[in-house]
Amino acid sequence: MKPVRVALLGCGVVGTEIVRLLAEQSDDLAARVGAPIELAGIAVRRPDRVRHGVPRELLTTDAMGLATREDVDLVVEVIGGIEPARSLILGALKTGKSVVSANKALLAEDGETLFAAAREFGADLYYEASVAGAIPLLRPLRESLVGDRIHRVLGIVNGTTNYILDQMDTHGAGFAEALEEAQGLGYAEADPTADVEAFDAAAKAAILARLAFHTPVTAADVHREGITEVTAQDVAGAKAVDCVVKLLAICERFEDRGVSVRVYPAMIPRSHPLGSVRGAFNAVFVEAESAGSLMFYGAGAGGAPTASAVLGDIVAVSRNLVSGASGPAETSYAALPVLPMGETITRYHVQLDVADQAGVLAQVAEEFARNDVSIQAVRQEGHGDDAQLVIVTHRAPDRALAATVESLRSHPSVREVASVMRVEGDL
Amino acid sequence: MKPVRVALLGCGVVGTEIVRLLAEQSDDLAARVGAPIELAGIAVRRPDRVRHGVPRELLTTDAMGLATREDVDLVVEVIGGIEPARSLILGALKTGKSVVSANKALLAEDGETLFAAAREFGADLYYEASVAGAIPLLRPLRESLVGDRIHRVLGIVNGTTNYILDQMDTHGAGFAEALEEAQGLGYAEADPTADVEAFDAAAKAAILARLAFHTPVTAADVHREGITEVTAQDVAGAKAVDCVVKLLAICERFEDRGVSVRVYPAMIPRSHPLGSVRGAFNAVFVEAESAGSLMFYGAGAGGAPTASAVLGDIVAVSRNLVSGASGPAETSYAALPVLPMGETITRYHVQLDVADQAGVLAQVAEEFARNDVSIQAVRQEGHGDDAQLVIVTHRAPDRALAATVESLRSHPSVREVASVMRVEGDL
Repeated sequence: MKPVRVALLGCGVVGTEIVRLLAEQSDDLAARVGAPIELAGIAVRRPDRVRHGVPRELLTTDAMGLATREDVDLVVEVIGGIEPARSLILGALKTGKSVVSANKALLAEDGETLFAAAREFGADLYYEASVAGAIPLLRPLRESLVGDRIHRVLGIVNGTTNYILDQMDTHGAGFAEALEEAQGLGYAEADPTADVEAFDAAAKAAILARLAFHTPVTAADVHREGITEVTAQDVAGAKAVDCVVKLLAICERFEDRGVSVRVYPAMIPRSHPLGSVRGAFNAVFVEAESAGSLMFYGAGAGGAPTASAVLGDIVAVSRNLVSGASGPAETSYAALPVLPMGETITRYHVQLDVADQAGVLAQVAEEFARNDVSIQAVRQEGHGDDAQLVIVTHRAPDRALAATVESLRSHPSVREVASVMRVEGDL
Repeated sequence: MKPVRVALLGCGVVGTEIVRLLAEQSDDLAARVGAPIELAGIAVRRPDRVRHGVPRELLTTDAMGLATREDVDLVVEVIGGIEPARSLILGALKTGKSVVSANKALLAEDGETLFAAAREFGADLYYEASVAGAIPLLRPLRESLVGDRIHRVLGIVNGTTNYILDQMDTHGAGFAEALEEAQGLGYAEADPTADVEAFDAAAKAAILARLAFHTPVTAADVHREGITEVTAQDVAGAKAVDCVVKLLAICERFEDRGVSVRVYPAMIPRSHPLGSVRGAFNAVFVEAESAGSLMFYGAGAGGAPTASAVLGDIVAVSRNLVSGASGPAETSYAALPVLPMGETITRYHVQLDVADQAGVLAQVAEEFARNDVSIQAVRQEGHGDDAQLVIVTHRAPDRALAATVESLRSHPSVREVASVMRVEGDL
């Protein structure tokens, strides 16, 4: 059988692992594909760097030359970032080559351009590794659930922040302390911005929302709040109502009114399947009309898991090439509007330090009522200087909830708004 | 666009739901497929039965006529059982029609015949709904993880038995009592044999093993033990070591020596992701070389979830038909031997009522040693007539473990072997 010729763009941790696996499992892969998979070349910036197990004669610094070379059938992009990755992928697609990419930032920023090019030139563009590492997630959304109507996707899609929040939950640590520990153990980078400010999770949310709702969504459409402001008090408040704070990527459909795509730290019941996702693990919970509730769980990052996802795509695309077929095209036919955060329906959990005097509860409740926010539960705790009100609202537009909190900040009976946290799941 | 014409074989709970969804979501499905999906006919045994929302003019009792009719592109089989389902599917495949089936019993008994026919006639055969209802599982195994090496699949794939065992765990109920309650609530059938004797789980284990190991496995190859013998003492013993008893479908690869496919009640740590799967939910835990540990969780049965899985397959196959492609063919190229249970490596948790006398522990330990079984932990409990030894072994061939228990049954110091339960996961 004529081999499938693969060009690899980028050879860092993931790339090196792909090279290793392609060599080690070549017989198995050939049997599964129906043809051998051959490495045609590897584009790197620094060919002199030592890469164990990577054949030096395959290295080149001419990435575009390799990506568009005539003897290449399939281009695998593991460079990351927007450029030159975008130009290289477009170059490959335009010369009819199929592409496998792990590039969440690029897919979230400019997926439409890439998908349009793939359609136009009849090539496959697969990107399972871009969200939640090795957890099969995009293919299930794109193919298994394609006959269903997805209502909501709730995901823990960033291992670093989950590790930090888990430490805060388990040991009562503050954010700064937990971050430092995560950095020491290699779970967080020296510059943790992409993770803790939720840029990473927001890119993944955009990709998930697009697939779930057949609607174009970019990273810029995603409402994003990181975890740097999460306090020990937030976490303790969650604990008191048997919840845990998680950074959640939420893609939600509000019937035909539109979709909401957002990432923020929120309280979720410990009994929720996402509530027990510990450490740096990822999990994505999907609520669909017919399928009901589903969860996908696994390692969300790391060289080997990411390589596994890339390799799965390489095999799938290679099978398509061998059989002359192509995979399902991306559809964004539904083109639902993306709602601003203010119009998204959420719930708040608010802790207020209040003056210890008769009538405070009534005055505070009045403030919620004035904004048309209904209260589900209220708890009074402590006395004197420690007097606290803990309020959980019913569902309401986020704008009304935010306005309520804003007016409470300057309310004469409220000494301090000690904690504000959104709530997801049934509390 | 030329429509995709679908013949439905069987119209019970799942079939009726499929008819409803095809009508209700026809616009969405057409957009996702690239062509409308049209119902060409529905084969039923009793056309006079009332079926809400099912067009009477589409009904026929001539199933084979419908399955092989010229204007049909895709045949959906939701009859279940071996015959006439097998003949109908073969008839459809031989006339070049693609097939979607939810029939676990047939796929587990005679999948090879069906797959061979699909290959020979260039047709698709999809069957996501046959295992774990709506949980996307077969496609991830078949496609997402196809570039990886799967070591082990551990599944809770039968909701009825999980419900019963969960009740036993939560309320300390005995098997008979928990079964009766499950029957009252509709979680168990009047004749619960297929569930409680694990025939259902064994069929699913065969299907999973085939996909995971690219090896032909039939239901007859699966070592099967049901849950009817599970006692309150077994469950209490598990609790004492922070474990829970689950009916597990286990597909395990022992390097190139072979694979083991088995279903039995076993103890698993509560902290294991499968340990918190409650009620009638299903979950499948996959351990792969590169991807690491993954879990898929959701509703394993019911009309709507099963219909969702079938519909996902209908869309996938329809897309293939529209683009003139076909899905990945089944491979069983690896053809690894299926090991007998005796050669499978497992661990036992044994509770012994023993004579309260010096030296019993030594005598019992000697029995394990004689069979080359190493003990990981032993605990002595109670005194006098209540004296008990609880032993957890290290991993050993099941044959050696079973022989040890057998010899303990007639050991003079052992009054009774009170409980024997295999252990999975790290204890």
